[in-house]
Amino acid sequence: MAVSDKPVPVRLGIDIGGTKCAVCIGTAAGRILARREIPTGAGRPPEAVLEELAELARALIDEERVVPEGIGVSCGGPLDRERGLVLSPPNLPGWDATPVGAFLEAAFPGVPVALENDANATALAEWRWGAGIGARHMIYLTQGTGIGGGLILDGRLYHGANDMAGEVGHHCVAPDGPMCNCGMRGCLEAVASGPAIARAASERLRTDGADRTSLASFRSRMDDLTARDVVQAGHAGDPLAVRVLDEAGTYLGMGIANLVQILNPEVVVVGTIAVHAGDLVLGPARRAMAAHAWPRAAGICRIVPAALGDRAQDLAAIAIAAADHGAAA
Amino acid sequence: MAVSDKPVPVRLGIDIGGTKCAVCIGTAAGRILARREIPTGAGRPPEAVLEELAELARALIDEERVVPEGIGVSCGGPLDRERGLVLSPPNLPGWDATPVGAFLEAAFPGVPVALENDANATALAEWRWGAGIGARHMIYLTQGTGIGGGLILDGRLYHGANDMAGEVGHHCVAPDGPMCNCGMRGCLEAVASGPAIARAASERLRTDGADRTSLASFRSRMDDLTARDVVQAGHAGDPLAVRVLDEAGTYLGMGIANLVQILNPEVVVVGTIAVHAGDLVLGPARRAMAAHAWPRAAGICRIVPAALGDRAQDLAAIAIAAADHGAAA
Repeated sequence: MAVSDKPVPVRLGIDIGGTKCAVCIGTAAGRILARREIPTGAGRPPEAVLEELAELARALIDEERVVPEGIGVSCGGPLDRERGLVLSPPNLPGWDATPVGAFLEAAFPGVPVALENDANATALAEWRWGAGIGARHMIYLTQGTGIGGGLILDGRLYHGANDMAGEVGHHCVAPDGPMCNCGMRGCLEAVASGPAIARAASERLRTDGADRTSLASFRSRMDDLTARDVVQAGHAGDPLAVRVLDEAGTYLGMGIANLVQILNPEVVVVGTIAVHAGDLVLGPARRAMAAHAWPRAAGICRIVPAALGDRAQDLAAIAIAAADHGAAA
Repeated sequence: MAVSDKPVPVRLGIDIGGTKCAVCIGTAAGRILARREIPTGAGRPPEAVLEELAELARALIDEERVVPEGIGVSCGGPLDRERGLVLSPPNLPGWDATPVGAFLEAAFPGVPVALENDANATALAEWRWGAGIGARHMIYLTQGTGIGGGLILDGRLYHGANDMAGEVGHHCVAPDGPMCNCGMRGCLEAVASGPAIARAASERLRTDGADRTSLASFRSRMDDLTARDVVQAGHAGDPLAVRVLDEAGTYLGMGIANLVQILNPEVVVVGTIAVHAGDLVLGPARRAMAAHAWPRAAGICRIVPAALGDRAQDLAAIAIAAADHGAAA
């Protein structure tokens, strides 16, 4: 590929996950030009992973004959954004105060590095190139193994006092509900995440019986039942699955209603399970939001599935690879 | 009073309430120089009230020999800030789409007019001159007849998509709790406002008996019992009052915990009842917040009583009398 006279500005994106890591090169318009992936390798020292990622990045840069204007790193939180540190995220054992920012600044001198937790980074990507385009106030929720979130307020990614803002999955929607993995009771995550959906389906199989459900085969192996199975059964019209997804969607909508009352966004973008389940989850979520928020705020707020699909993680890293997270960038 | 060679820039503040209205002149540093008050007069046409306020304002301006650089109007919501309209607030019957902004712009040509709901305006005043000075992220809650709120995020008053942001009193903290005046169930206002405190005390008088409480005299006239009585009894150590305030404070802290998880503020400023009750309400609120929010976010967030006292409403109007609501103003 020849270098053009006027090259398109590109960015380097690095996505650090518990299972795999990816390096990609993308444009400021959100197009991925090249991408490479490696297993993270449980127990490997962070330095070794970072070395391998830097090598991959150099190879991609050489192949594409580009000079990235910025590097964006998307990673599970908590992290210290200002100091570029990854702070012991649950999915990355051993990454304790790991200076990812300083490492990459040394590896790519002169190229600014931005670090962001993955939910915030995905929020930014969905806002720039996905389901939140054009909104001034957007809330992003991942509905996966956990429920994370990111807030775009007044046309900027909002971080709060010490980068803890946007933990929408860990505000209470069910004070008498189940314990959450985080140690608190009744968090939105505890009643509307993937594991919560699987657990609710298991419980219904146990208590309601399993006569007329396609999920009956899981009765002897409840531990294998996942939200994905429930969503699949739901799409086929299975009444138990539909009911479980309706309940999770209702909780989701109650949580979103709280966000609508507090933040009055134009759009709430929901990723992962909501994308696959569609109206099985988003239908009850929309109804619950309308019932639990005031009409003037609820009426102007759309609840939509995330739009970036499996490009979301790469684009998340590309989205933050810029000095300014604001509307002008 | 002589006009100085270099006059201090002043602003005109107008506070429109359901019972009374006030006009004041204040400085950009939050000092009130002059003030006049009138009864709103139930049923009076809004135009008559506005005419009287404009006349009062002209008199104050003449007396103080000043030229205000801006006019701020603080009023119960809902309102259309951009278009300067008051939109049928519950405390102002007959004020339906009342063009307060246009009226004052015509009465004081060339002076910019800013309209803001009273909770937002008070949030701005507490942030500029009260308990929130220096914070980049501050949440204000009034704990009075209702629970209103205002959000200072990233050093600016946050309005949301259509001026509905900050309704922190109407997010759900008790899904099985009492109905709220707003028509929803279990709002923070329904369990922690003044009327909620009075109702909880009445119910305890009814169910727990009234042997050892100084509030026993209210058993024959429950309708007279107010939050003020409960706070007074609480300060005197009355166990029933202390318990009721503890419960309301706990709900308040649970609501604040949700805000901490979502918005990660440095400080939450609580007005009205919390100011009078002090640690009787703020003690349990702080404990509940610490129990229902993550340590990293809870640990950097203070819960403090509002500081402006009876100057709050005047200063609220003065605070918004400026083109920019941001940190630079």
